Amino acid sequence: MSLNTKAILRILCALMIILGVAMIPSVGLAVYYKEQSTIPAFLAAIIPLMAAGIWGVIKVRPESNKLRTREGFLIVSLTWIFASLVGTVPYLVTGILPSFADAFFESTAGFTTTGATIIADVEILPRSILFWRSFTQWLGGMGILVFAISILPRLGISGVHILKAETSAPMMKKMASRVADSAKILYIMYIIFTLAAIVLYRAGGMGFFDSAIASFANVATGGLSNYNDGLMHFGSVYVEVISAVFAVLVAINFSLYHNLTRGQIREFLKDQELRTFFFILIAAILIISVDLWMTQTYSTFEESLRYGGFQAASFLTTTGHFSTDFGAWPAFSQMILFVLMLIGACSSSTGCGIKVIRVIILFKIIRKSFYKMIHPRAIRPTKLNGRVVPQDVITNIASYFYLYISIVVLSIFIISFENFDLLTTVSSVVACLNNIGTGFGLVGPTGNFSIFSDFSKFYLSFLMIVGRLELFTVILLFFPGFWNPDK
Amino acid sequence: MSLNTKAILRILCALMIILGVAMIPSVGLAVYYKEQSTIPAFLAAIIPLMAAGIWGVIKVRPESNKLRTREGFLIVSLTWIFASLVGTVPYLVTGILPSFADAFFESTAGFTTTGATIIADVEILPRSILFWRSFTQWLGGMGILVFAISILPRLGISGVHILKAETSAPMMKKMASRVADSAKILYIMYIIFTLAAIVLYRAGGMGFFDSAIASFANVATGGLSNYNDGLMHFGSVYVEVISAVFAVLVAINFSLYHNLTRGQIREFLKDQELRTFFFILIAAILIISVDLWMTQTYSTFEESLRYGGFQAASFLTTTGHFSTDFGAWPAFSQMILFVLMLIGACSSSTGCGIKVIRVIILFKIIRKSFYKMIHPRAIRPTKLNGRVVPQDVITNIASYFYLYISIVVLSIFIISFENFDLLTTVSSVVACLNNIGTGFGLVGPTGNFSIFSDFSKFYLSFLMIVGRLELFTVILLFFPGFWNPDK
Repeated sequence: MSLNTKAILRILCALMIILGVAMIPSVGLAVYYKEQSTIPAFLAAIIPLMAAGIWGVIKVRPESNKLRTREGFLIVSLTWIFASLVGTVPYLVTGILPSFADAFFESTAGFTTTGATIIADVEILPRSILFWRSFTQWLGGMGILVFAISILPRLGISGVHILKAETSAPMMKKMASRVADSAKILYIMYIIFTLAAIVLYRAGGMGFFDSAIASFANVATGGLSNYNDGLMHFGSVYVEVISAVFAVLVAINFSLYHNLTRGQIREFLKDQELRTFFFILIAAILIISVDLWMTQTYSTFEESLRYGGFQAASFLTTTGHFSTDFGAWPAFSQMILFVLMLIGACSSSTGCGIKVIRVIILFKIIRKSFYKMIHPRAIRPTKLNGRVVPQDVITNIASYFYLYISIVVLSIFIISFENFDLLTTVSSVVACLNNIGTGFGLVGPTGNFSIFSDFSKFYLSFLMIVGRLELFTVILLFFPGFWNPDK
Repeated sequence: MSLNTKAILRILCALMIILGVAMIPSVGLAVYYKEQSTIPAFLAAIIPLMAAGIWGVIKVRPESNKLRTREGFLIVSLTWIFASLVGTVPYLVTGILPSFADAFFESTAGFTTTGATIIADVEILPRSILFWRSFTQWLGGMGILVFAISILPRLGISGVHILKAETSAPMMKKMASRVADSAKILYIMYIIFTLAAIVLYRAGGMGFFDSAIASFANVATGGLSNYNDGLMHFGSVYVEVISAVFAVLVAINFSLYHNLTRGQIREFLKDQELRTFFFILIAAILIISVDLWMTQTYSTFEESLRYGGFQAASFLTTTGHFSTDFGAWPAFSQMILFVLMLIGACSSSTGCGIKVIRVIILFKIIRKSFYKMIHPRAIRPTKLNGRVVPQDVITNIASYFYLYISIVVLSIFIISFENFDLLTTVSSVVACLNNIGTGFGLVGPTGNFSIFSDFSKFYLSFLMIVGRLELFTVILLFFPGFWNPDK
């Protein structure tokens, strides 16, 4: 069982074309804003990239178009790594980020929708670069994979395995029998959300460029900003409300929207994951607001609700935007934000984290265990949305948690070599693995990731990709059996 | 199905007699060391306690001697809570700890073998009190339950359910067909270890009193000391080696010793949990020593090995002794200590923590998941020591982890109201839940738990009991179904 190397190569070539095309808007902006130094740099990236991509797609002819599960995992991982690599070119060629470690971190933070940054002063950057930086987020947002799923079938390669790998989040509903069709629907919805956010930001008085950057950060749950102080820059309740609403909208399982378009409102409203998501969100907002108010962090309850609500929505959805320096909040509220970071969004959304559905199953497993202790002989299956969750799915979720904890523990070890305080160490790991991009301590709202060594920057970039691909996809490649399945 | 209240009450009365008897040595010491003020205080505790206990055992006559699983859980939890309550009396009556919250914390830290303390200056305490404090550890060490198991059958009540609840750690080997007999064997071994440690400490030049205190702290994996600077006080390599060796000895599954006494050396050496325990220990010692040496925390490798080795052994076994201020170590080594705290000792030992066996099963579950992804149709059972681990045990371990994480997260919330730094907050929770007693930051080797509010002291005491009884036993009582099993 050797790998279908040619088919994999061909997909990467197609990806080069996509990325080349994706850089063209930046050239337009460079021309528009008269950033003459970046125009040749972008062209120097686009022309060879597209040439090589087109040459590859024409020349590389796989003998078979079939891809096995194993190859699906490999392609998904390679796609993200490769996109992150190619994404560094604009930073490197323009000389904005001359260090490869910095460029790779920034690029990966974009494509994984993490939105972490090593740039202390973003306001001095050319707009074409800022656009590219935010656009990588947007591309990553729905998953380059959804792009790829629209392209791949035209290459004659089925994308089922790939979708399976990308959304190993449990209970991915059979969205439409034809993968390519459903990908297109998600893709359209994603664009609608993007445009709607831009329009609403514009309506609030923001410039078009600012609106686009804010919209990309929103719909991709990335959180990158073109201002050093993020959304604090605007200091506007309206902007914060729009940002929070869109963060929540894209953190909902997209297949539920698909149901909505088919008139299944009841199924939408009764979805257990959605309900739990809102329960967690509302509970967190209330608890934080009361804490901020009681501790007189803000003078009025309105202000406490404004900042508490925004940060809770921003962190639960793994967007990582900030409208206040929550690093100065009382420990209790910070701890709640931290747990929201861990939980993350709903499955099959653009958000990341552990996912609400896994947390639900977790509590169901605990409850069942207690029940079993009292009634040792009773048999009661675990249900979700009225349907029995297969034992395989439960085992998979159990593994996910153990793997998650193992990765976090190992990563804390590795990052602790930097000798930062525990808060910075732990929150940098979680902010990258869960694709939030903002943590606490030195990587909090007033800090950035430039404090890390090159080694840690690479490692944290790796964590972002691992997290974005639901752990298993990437870690599986390190499992010896993956390369020797016959053993 | 009403509870057999009378049988439970009778056991608690028996416990009062045991605790009364256990206070007698302190009276002897008070007489010997001429601590006249504490003699009447102890007598004022012992006499009513024993009188009430004896009266209860004679008067309370349960209609049936049968105890169901449900009652077993309840008795185990009540025994620990009740012992901790009664254990406060010497502190309160002597006026050493006039606050009930302080006395309860100190008493619970003893009976749960946590060894945490709220007393900043222990060196000014009367020796009779110091002895009581350390003796509560020793009593808790093997489990008041093992005492109770030797007593209970004489009361005509089978202790099987109780043993089951106390050692809900997985794969508890069937040690001997008759519970009372095997309890007696464990009890004898425990005493042998205690005496051996005393003799060896004495041989190293320590006084008899100091030796006894150090021995109790060792064999119970408690770690309480009669000096403010713990084992640093002696500054002796010999003392540290004895302490580390005994910490390791009692952190091994006692049923393996039982095998050894029956000549099953091979089974002892091949035990997977034992091997993994030593692998973790040796790996941790080497890594910490190299880190301490490379970062020039200590000037020589020998010194690094001495302190690194001691702390690793002390923390993995959940003893919590310290021979150096590890709070000043580099972050990486501290992080390793922290993970050792989490892992803990072997099952069925006097040590606490998550237990090595659960960590093994955790990694087996992860590995199996990866295997399943590559070979979706393959069936490969999880094995331990060559035997298949039943699915029920695996599910139970999965639940344990989720419950563990849930308790830690919830507890961090609660303790974060104190507004301490993250390191102090997290490590105080883990130090109590895993029964180590020493943490990092403000609860590190140079600090103590007196910084907490009364509420947090009670909460942390509760955590100690929850941790000591393997989570389920106590938390089950909060599960509504426990009280309404017919529902």
